[in-house]
Amino acid sequence: MSVNKQIKLATRPVGMPTEDTWKLESNPIPSPGAGEFLTKIEYVSLDPAMRGWMNDVKSYIPPVQIDAVMRAGTIGKVIESNHDGYAVGDYVTGTMGVQQYAVSDGKFCVKTNTFGLPPEKFLSTLGMPGFTAYFGFLEVGQPKEGETVVVSGAAGAVGSVVGQIAKIKGCRAVGIAGGKEKCDYVVNELGFDACIDYKAGNVRQGLSEHCPGGVDVYFDNVGGEILDTVLTKINMGARIPICGAISQYNNKEAVKGPSNYLSLLVNRAMMKGLIVFDWQDRYAEGGMQMAQWMQEGKLKSREHIEEGIENFYPTFCKLFNGEKKGKLILKVS
Amino acid sequence: MSVNKQIKLATRPVGMPTEDTWKLESNPIPSPGAGEFLTKIEYVSLDPAMRGWMNDVKSYIPPVQIDAVMRAGTIGKVIESNHDGYAVGDYVTGTMGVQQYAVSDGKFCVKTNTFGLPPEKFLSTLGMPGFTAYFGFLEVGQPKEGETVVVSGAAGAVGSVVGQIAKIKGCRAVGIAGGKEKCDYVVNELGFDACIDYKAGNVRQGLSEHCPGGVDVYFDNVGGEILDTVLTKINMGARIPICGAISQYNNKEAVKGPSNYLSLLVNRAMMKGLIVFDWQDRYAEGGMQMAQWMQEGKLKSREHIEEGIENFYPTFCKLFNGEKKGKLILKVS
Repeated sequence: MSVNKQIKLATRPVGMPTEDTWKLESNPIPSPGAGEFLTKIEYVSLDPAMRGWMNDVKSYIPPVQIDAVMRAGTIGKVIESNHDGYAVGDYVTGTMGVQQYAVSDGKFCVKTNTFGLPPEKFLSTLGMPGFTAYFGFLEVGQPKEGETVVVSGAAGAVGSVVGQIAKIKGCRAVGIAGGKEKCDYVVNELGFDACIDYKAGNVRQGLSEHCPGGVDVYFDNVGGEILDTVLTKINMGARIPICGAISQYNNKEAVKGPSNYLSLLVNRAMMKGLIVFDWQDRYAEGGMQMAQWMQEGKLKSREHIEEGIENFYPTFCKLFNGEKKGKLILKVS
Repeated sequence: MSVNKQIKLATRPVGMPTEDTWKLESNPIPSPGAGEFLTKIEYVSLDPAMRGWMNDVKSYIPPVQIDAVMRAGTIGKVIESNHDGYAVGDYVTGTMGVQQYAVSDGKFCVKTNTFGLPPEKFLSTLGMPGFTAYFGFLEVGQPKEGETVVVSGAAGAVGSVVGQIAKIKGCRAVGIAGGKEKCDYVVNELGFDACIDYKAGNVRQGLSEHCPGGVDVYFDNVGGEILDTVLTKINMGARIPICGAISQYNNKEAVKGPSNYLSLLVNRAMMKGLIVFDWQDRYAEGGMQMAQWMQEGKLKSREHIEEGIENFYPTFCKLFNGEKKGKLILKVS
């Protein structure tokens, strides 16, 4: 392979992206200059946040520009280096985008000792989604032993980790996910106490049944109707970390705000947003702790891996159509 | 006067209450039994929260029952006592309801030394609205010197105190109120840095103009469109104490949730509900501090006093039609 296949943003989508949103280009493999190194990217992370990065609005990170390589988290191996900190053969995680090769001067990258673990884990539980769950849940959610924790997107990369950490911390963990298969996975494989299938019907009734003592922490990945329903069940002093709102990302109209937000007032409860970058200086701590839990069999991680950079678009769609099983990753080399 | 005129809840309103929502009754003045005392109520407090107490829903306090005396905060003087803690002539604040006389065993009452100040101040800045502002702003809002504080309902009983405390704490205080007269009062009399007239037009533009560095604390009394607009202007780590949502209290449809709540995520910001009762054991501390600020001329308090229990309904309406100037109080004796 002598070319670098790249997925670039072609047009800004309105609502759900289409095949024309991106274009596939074949360009020469770049050469590293002085103080730079070349990475052959093995795996690209697909995350719901990517949808937000495509909108031309002020946010926590600048939007992806038209004709730029689509931003994405990556892991790959150094294959050529003029950088003292990176040697050929080193694994590198970073945000190198949806492409097969990338040159870097080391900014926004981390040399990653995989300790012999499969590299894709470092885009999953031992990477951003895991850190998001770990710090977002523990720091913003402030769970206490014996409390009831509800998490939406419970079969997803972040939600699955939140619920498992809740169990490790002695909480009752109740998931919300779409479909029997996912719910079974969440309960039988991940060890949640229960999982409510929002596609099967009544989330409110499911919460009454599985959270008889109310909800102390609601880790929200989805927003919309589910957030509104959980707000009717929160306890005094509840904490609601807002991690995402996947139900709203492809909206063509305004985001649906939570009608029941006055439950925060009645219950002296808190809703707080989080972005994983804020704990950047503690990633190592989170990664070590989660790797230990994985070794002890307390924390399971599942990746859904698709192959081929040509399949970026159908793979991206799986973020939103409920078809993925575990952390969505694209193998590009 | 040998009767006790009482305002009782006649029917549960849908939307804005009407004249038929309450009925005026004349009943015999009750006699205090053993361990009880009789209070002649002088002033009744009118508060937006009263609207919520009329709905038959689970909240932080049970709803007012049909045919019960309408719940309200009061201050009055003991005129007969069989209670060791209360002597004839003592002032008593409590929640004795919209009536002229009430018997109590001392529960939910506080003997109040007015230090010669006008008793109505103890339903205003030296009472619940003042405590709500003091504790809600300082404890939930966590203002820091040099930060920008925005408060809606800025000419109201709570908002006016929030902004003045913001100034005392070295913050920039920007109010939002309805009409030029109120805005002038907020700036010229209360010393806010600016006040945005939401009736005159563009709140977003007003915020851009008067909060060039963004908003660090937004103390929300109104909800609705104004909350949504302020959410677009908050800074990283902003705090939004949710004190009320007067724009939504008489809704016949569902409450309008804040569409822009994902600004909390982007800005790692917090929205937290508050109920003044949670600081009950610190009311004395708040009262003493505010009385001192009043004496020092740093904190002004204005009451809008109407007369006659027969005028309860038109007075109540002034809570919502923007006609009141200062804390709304009804003199009933």
